[in-house]
Amino acid sequence: MLDIQNMRDDRNVPIRKVGVKGLRYPIVLLDKANTVQHTTALVNLYADLPHDFKGTHMSRFIEVFDAHRRDLSMPRFLRMLEEIRSSLDAENAYADIHFPYFIEKRAPVSGQAAMMSYDCGYSGMVGPEGKKDFEVLVSVPIQTVCPCSKAISDRGAHNQRGVVTLKVALGPFFWIEDLVALVEASASSGVYTLLKREDEKFVTEAAFDNPRFVEDLVREVYVGVAALGKFPSFSVEAENFESIHNHSAYAFVEYP
Amino acid sequence: MLDIQNMRDDRNVPIRKVGVKGLRYPIVLLDKANTVQHTTALVNLYADLPHDFKGTHMSRFIEVFDAHRRDLSMPRFLRMLEEIRSSLDAENAYADIHFPYFIEKRAPVSGQAAMMSYDCGYSGMVGPEGKKDFEVLVSVPIQTVCPCSKAISDRGAHNQRGVVTLKVALGPFFWIEDLVALVEASASSGVYTLLKREDEKFVTEAAFDNPRFVEDLVREVYVGVAALGKFPSFSVEAENFESIHNHSAYAFVEYP
Amino acid sequence: MLDIQNMRDDRNVPIRKVGVKGLRYPIVLLDKANTVQHTTALVNLYADLPHDFKGTHMSRFIEVFDAHRRDLSMPRFLRMLEEIRSSLDAENAYADIHFPYFIEKRAPVSGQAAMMSYDCGYSGMVGPEGKKDFEVLVSVPIQTVCPCSKAISDRGAHNQRGVVTLKVALGPFFWIEDLVALVEASASSGVYTLLKREDEKFVTEAAFDNPRFVEDLVREVYVGVAALGKFPSFSVEAENFESIHNHSAYAFVEYP
Amino acid sequence: MLDIQNMRDDRNVPIRKVGVKGLRYPIVLLDKANTVQHTTALVNLYADLPHDFKGTHMSRFIEVFDAHRRDLSMPRFLRMLEEIRSSLDAENAYADIHFPYFIEKRAPVSGQAAMMSYDCGYSGMVGPEGKKDFEVLVSVPIQTVCPCSKAISDRGAHNQRGVVTLKVALGPFFWIEDLVALVEASASSGVYTLLKREDEKFVTEAAFDNPRFVEDLVREVYVGVAALGKFPSFSVEAENFESIHNHSAYAFVEYP
Repeated sequence: MLDIQNMRDDRNVPIRKVGVKGLRYPIVLLDKANTVQHTTALVNLYADLPHDFKGTHMSRFIEVFDAHRRDLSMPRFLRMLEEIRSSLDAENAYADIHFPYFIEKRAPVSGQAAMMSYDCGYSGMVGPEGKKDFEVLVSVPIQTVCPCSKAISDRGAHNQRGVVTLKVALGPFFWIEDLVALVEASASSGVYTLLKREDEKFVTEAAFDNPRFVEDLVREVYVGVAALGKFPSFSVEAENFESIHNHSAYAFVEYP
Repeated sequence: MLDIQNMRDDRNVPIRKVGVKGLRYPIVLLDKANTVQHTTALVNLYADLPHDFKGTHMSRFIEVFDAHRRDLSMPRFLRMLEEIRSSLDAENAYADIHFPYFIEKRAPVSGQAAMMSYDCGYSGMVGPEGKKDFEVLVSVPIQTVCPCSKAISDRGAHNQRGVVTLKVALGPFFWIEDLVALVEASASSGVYTLLKREDEKFVTEAAFDNPRFVEDLVREVYVGVAALGKFPSFSVEAENFESIHNHSAYAFVEYP
Repeated sequence: MLDIQNMRDDRNVPIRKVGVKGLRYPIVLLDKANTVQHTTALVNLYADLPHDFKGTHMSRFIEVFDAHRRDLSMPRFLRMLEEIRSSLDAENAYADIHFPYFIEKRAPVSGQAAMMSYDCGYSGMVGPEGKKDFEVLVSVPIQTVCPCSKAISDRGAHNQRGVVTLKVALGPFFWIEDLVALVEASASSGVYTLLKREDEKFVTEAAFDNPRFVEDLVREVYVGVAALGKFPSFSVEAENFESIHNHSAYAFVEYP
Repeated sequence: MLDIQNMRDDRNVPIRKVGVKGLRYPIVLLDKANTVQHTTALVNLYADLPHDFKGTHMSRFIEVFDAHRRDLSMPRFLRMLEEIRSSLDAENAYADIHFPYFIEKRAPVSGQAAMMSYDCGYSGMVGPEGKKDFEVLVSVPIQTVCPCSKAISDRGAHNQRGVVTLKVALGPFFWIEDLVALVEASASSGVYTLLKREDEKFVTEAAFDNPRFVEDLVREVYVGVAALGKFPSFSVEAENFESIHNHSAYAFVEYP
């Protein structure tokens, strides 16, 4: 059977990335509290293609990913990338996956527990001579009370849900759970799936006592993550779904 | 050239709706302040198909819609549906379109103006013997302050952006602008694109003085719309993007 | 502590549905091949509220759902609804959940296996005197070759991915897997996550030999589901992401 | 009234970008065929903030943008950015906007006309000493016939809708219309809003005669854009909504 993909291409245009995009797959990850976690991922897998080859072999990306889906801890993710690289005979292989990560969270006063969902992701590449990049993305919904609104108003203060997206480059091993806790502690308050009335009172007052601009939020997270001294580089993005506008307030910082 | 669509089908299954979906088109509407408004719409157009015909003629939907795009006021929308019905020789024709509708809005103290965007839609059908339905959908972003949080907390009260979706069946002519104003007046506060500090103080205090559950919101809008006595039927839906949760609070009422 | 929700409301507007919307949760379902399946769901939970009560108690929805997340088979879903109903002292309780459902699927010639993801959902209500509704939604991506294009062209035929959404009202127990197979057999071809070249040849030729309009697709599925004689009512919707247009072709049928 | 934003911040974290995100606004652009085009945009506006200021002044972004919405041709977009920069006393100002851009397109045989919608965007920044960046994004839906499927199958060939996203850095003035035409000519076929049967035959055969992998597509566009010699840098991304899979094939190239 003809292998058109293996034919020669003479347009002299090397392809930076070619592969499969938008694959949805069940995966298993490490979980700090429960050893493993089952979740569902949106998956993109790419490799480069030299200028003189006509096409890549798309099915190989799937074969490699499928073989790793039952253990996609961070070190295994890089091993999966190495296998894509060798299976496709590519110089560089790339992958990014996004998934909801679930953590049981207790209400601050009643102690009642329910699951919180955090949008997370891995993004990585491996290349020749051990070259590799690995970035973990953690999105944390939080509450912010506006310091300006509180200062200038005779009563109340506008507040809203926001989301902080933290991206860290891989250094030593870490738990997503610990980054989530750091972000939640940097906001006016964390948000919860289940709150009884005594919890709602606590959260309302705690948030009112800790007003935060979107600018404060990214700075607090920046200072906290930098203090960990674990990550060679990172960025922090915050988006507030303003309760007084129909658009968001946004801030972004990066290190270094 | 063969006309496969016109062939006979013997599976004996009449098709309720067949047509084109997800068309994006520039349209022109009536505007209370500026006579006309240019906006962009997502368009679905359908007709029924008797059990003994194999297929519909998709291009005719586009031909009819294109001819009407420069004037899609409410009466013209129904005329467009009549033309689809006759062009396709169908018993019933259906259309729904969704579009952002823009209204200039002034800040409550400074008076500064900017554009607000409201998600709106028309949904209609025409059938034999003058049968017709027409529904207008208006989505209005608003602010709510939680009455429970305010009552039980020593200071502050959680608040958030919400969105109220009002659907009204057509009676006499009305302006989208008037329904928007009614919904905004039913909330703890309207939201604004542009607020200076004096406006932010005003909005914060006004909202704090008018706490509303999602249940209050749909009831207030219900009472207001019913009092107009203009619409044979309507429904009101409210969704609050809770600032203390990562999910929404939701309420729905309908008349009659 | 004040219970504002329990206060009296005198606007005389009963609320059809009030509750929580957009909750994301890990759930466990029954799986034909593997006994259980872990997946992630988007969850909406509602109850009605009599005209004389000011508000519902949102946290109770979460408490009940959380207690059932480790077994959300169809019968348990209705039991969960019963508990919401009694926990909130409501006349009617409503829930709908949407989740990707994963089935391992083998390529038609090489037999290589990979996971396919199908968007599915449960939607139900329970009311007084044993009144209940339960509907299962199954969305199946498929391929269609256009019969008109094939008939009038000297070579080739345009084809595309489409998606069929089947909703069935609950009769006796059934497997999602069996409905998926029925829909795939009604299309020009099923789609696959992993195909080797011999599979691609097979799929291309099989689809070319079985051209289907979007009208054919909903009729074939209708006839197949009706022949099962299992469901008191059902509907079939098909959307083709036309390869020659930037919009979709759409068809919809319902029984009875 | 207190100006909290103007207070001193001592955390020593400069903010790369802060501003408003997700604003929806009506805008007016230049149009090759009709002089001007009304459309609707999603707008993000940012500036940097030195480490020693607590907050930015969000309302000024809106004031500046609102003043420019009636003429957002490319040169005016950069002038708008200059005004944000000076209004906020920032070192750098950033903006990106996304909008559907509409072009009337005629069917290839019948000549019948209808509107096509193309997702487009501007992304720019201005900084000190005349530093500036400006990038235009043009997304063009197209059709691809798979060369492998055609070569190995006895009849037919799978094909699908795809979308090519071209991003070009600003050199001399150019029309979006010309880039759209170049991309459509690089695919197996363009797609159309309105096709009669004679057009469908033409498009089917033309596409079948011009099979293209996603790799071919990005290379063809690359060669065509490079030959224009107009853009200091550009990238081309193609995504095919595979008709035999439930995921996409993807390729990406960039110059230089």
